Amino acid sequence: MATLVNDSILKNDAAGPVPVSGGLGTDSYYNHSFFQKIAANVAKDMIDEAISKKLDVKSLLSSSKTIRLADLGCAVGPNTFDAMQNIIDLIKLKCQTHLPTSPMPEFQVFFNDQPANDFNTLFKSIPPKREYFAAGVPGSFYERLFPDSSLHVVYSSYALHWLSKVPEGLEDKNSPAWNKGRIHHASAAEEVRRAYAVQWANDLSNFLNARAREIVPGGIIVIVTHSIPDGMEYSELANGMMYNCMASILLDIAKRGLISEEQVDAFNLPTYAAPPGEFVSVVENNEYFNIVTMGESNPSPWLTDDVHVDMNEFVNHIRAAMEGMFNKHFAREIVNEMFERLEVKLSEISVEMESAYKDKIQAFYVLQRNDSG
Amino acid sequence: MATLVNDSILKNDAAGPVPVSGGLGTDSYYNHSFFQKIAANVAKDMIDEAISKKLDVKSLLSSSKTIRLADLGCAVGPNTFDAMQNIIDLIKLKCQTHLPTSPMPEFQVFFNDQPANDFNTLFKSIPPKREYFAAGVPGSFYERLFPDSSLHVVYSSYALHWLSKVPEGLEDKNSPAWNKGRIHHASAAEEVRRAYAVQWANDLSNFLNARAREIVPGGIIVIVTHSIPDGMEYSELANGMMYNCMASILLDIAKRGLISEEQVDAFNLPTYAAPPGEFVSVVENNEYFNIVTMGESNPSPWLTDDVHVDMNEFVNHIRAAMEGMFNKHFAREIVNEMFERLEVKLSEISVEMESAYKDKIQAFYVLQRNDSG
Repeated sequence: MATLVNDSILKNDAAGPVPVSGGLGTDSYYNHSFFQKIAANVAKDMIDEAISKKLDVKSLLSSSKTIRLADLGCAVGPNTFDAMQNIIDLIKLKCQTHLPTSPMPEFQVFFNDQPANDFNTLFKSIPPKREYFAAGVPGSFYERLFPDSSLHVVYSSYALHWLSKVPEGLEDKNSPAWNKGRIHHASAAEEVRRAYAVQWANDLSNFLNARAREIVPGGIIVIVTHSIPDGMEYSELANGMMYNCMASILLDIAKRGLISEEQVDAFNLPTYAAPPGEFVSVVENNEYFNIVTMGESNPSPWLTDDVHVDMNEFVNHIRAAMEGMFNKHFAREIVNEMFERLEVKLSEISVEMESAYKDKIQAFYVLQRNDSG
Repeated sequence: MATLVNDSILKNDAAGPVPVSGGLGTDSYYNHSFFQKIAANVAKDMIDEAISKKLDVKSLLSSSKTIRLADLGCAVGPNTFDAMQNIIDLIKLKCQTHLPTSPMPEFQVFFNDQPANDFNTLFKSIPPKREYFAAGVPGSFYERLFPDSSLHVVYSSYALHWLSKVPEGLEDKNSPAWNKGRIHHASAAEEVRRAYAVQWANDLSNFLNARAREIVPGGIIVIVTHSIPDGMEYSELANGMMYNCMASILLDIAKRGLISEEQVDAFNLPTYAAPPGEFVSVVENNEYFNIVTMGESNPSPWLTDDVHVDMNEFVNHIRAAMEGMFNKHFAREIVNEMFERLEVKLSEISVEMESAYKDKIQAFYVLQRNDSG
């Protein structure tokens, strides 16, 4: 069995309304972020190549003796530390090659996530022996976070699929985008999907505009994100199937009178996996960034054949990332039941999910700040 | 009755081994930092004057479009936000006067404290409408925290009296600095005081060396700190009396067999209030900073005559700042008893403490980074 793990939902990041489970306990994101690590590794070759080829250290270091990196939507670690160290190693290598007689630059790394993120855990986990000065930056990455022209490399992994808010119209009975009986656009009317797509495009546009101010010309953004192949329906993905399972369990609980159907109608997950075509379109409209390279992949090949994820472990992972959102809307016993029954329901459709999971649901984009504006 | 509040012990900061009580609850530092605010206000005129007179915005902005500030030992707020905003207001005023046709610079503020500080609370408390980009920096300010030449104004209030560690020899029976039966150098042998003074001087020297790298020439450090008039004995200060009370209560508990005398001997508060003469001597030996201005004051005049601090409230404040340190060494019920009896014991000597509190136990130093090195 290939993995059923659906990486995109395992990290509820800067833009999401509720942060991942904090602390270092058994149910924490920190101890359940193994799968994010696998997903991040898939992107590693792209990052390495883009930095090695495109980052002109000579030019960047002509105006600054410090190289500044940011991880936008870093959660609580530990993946962020590996990702940042990897980029630093590549830049150092490049400096050794191209600036052999200059002193090595200093590095400053900004770890960004929502103000509600567990920065205490993050700060206690930062490697004590590190080659950079560390800072935490609380705030939404859809807004400005840093001074003008102060960053050289921005990294964001499994964060940009989180919308800044629930798309408009989903909870309005009179809107064509009313999302009755669902918690996501999977299997919903096209108007619902479009509302999600519009919100996502606005958010990404805001992200790029903010970064355009903050990143120096020649600076790079590396994005690893949940994706969907162009032209594919979200309900065909393992994620979509799971969201539909969740909705169906909640509706079932509503039938027993423990919650109202209106409560289910009023709950929508603010997450959107954009197909590459939509991503490229937003970047091209933005004008401040060139696409250096991009790609789609399926994270599962990174698991060997003998890695089996049991459904209990899988649901625990999903819970660590998403429980907070459900808890804000439903009573705790409802959420408990939902996740318990989810494990059973997903086991029943494991064949379909396994097959769906072979799709390319991860995309990489490496963008470079041009000289305009 | 004048206030008995002794500001220096109310903030256990970056260098101290245990952070202030976190969160926003009744016993939290956040809700008990009223007195720090008063103390910080005493320094306000000095800060304002130094920045207005000495900070050459034209020169600073010739090499950077961003002004970067840091509060070293910021705790969890809210005082730090007022202090940073005040400095920004002064710089903006200066820019308006001296650079009327230039765009206003952007500001970035770094809030520093120990990694164990409650940054989650700090980040949730940062004013949402602010004129600066905010970042948190976990780490000891006795070490490097920022890249070379990246800061313009550094502020540190009631933090530099916390030593990086307990001075050497205090817990060694064979050392002339063995501090038997005490928890501080107040009323102790001269060797004990000297051990404290040496540790403090080393720490301040490390602080200045780190800042010398980080602060641009012309940049400023503002320090507000607990102090003691030159030539005065610490046991004459209200603080000293209180530490002696604490030790005497602990020894009394030891007599009842609930703790051992050795446990009391092995506990020493890592805090030292340096007289101005010692402070100046360290700065002059350091060579990277010039003393722009300095002064001593008594924070109590800032309380009106009709402000009476009841002993219960006072002990609650002290507890919020110091309890963590005691809890690391003594069982919780011992610490509870100690603070309960402290309230009674301090009430018994309130006349002496009130009189002692009229001394100038606060000092300000404004240092400017020179061009050397």
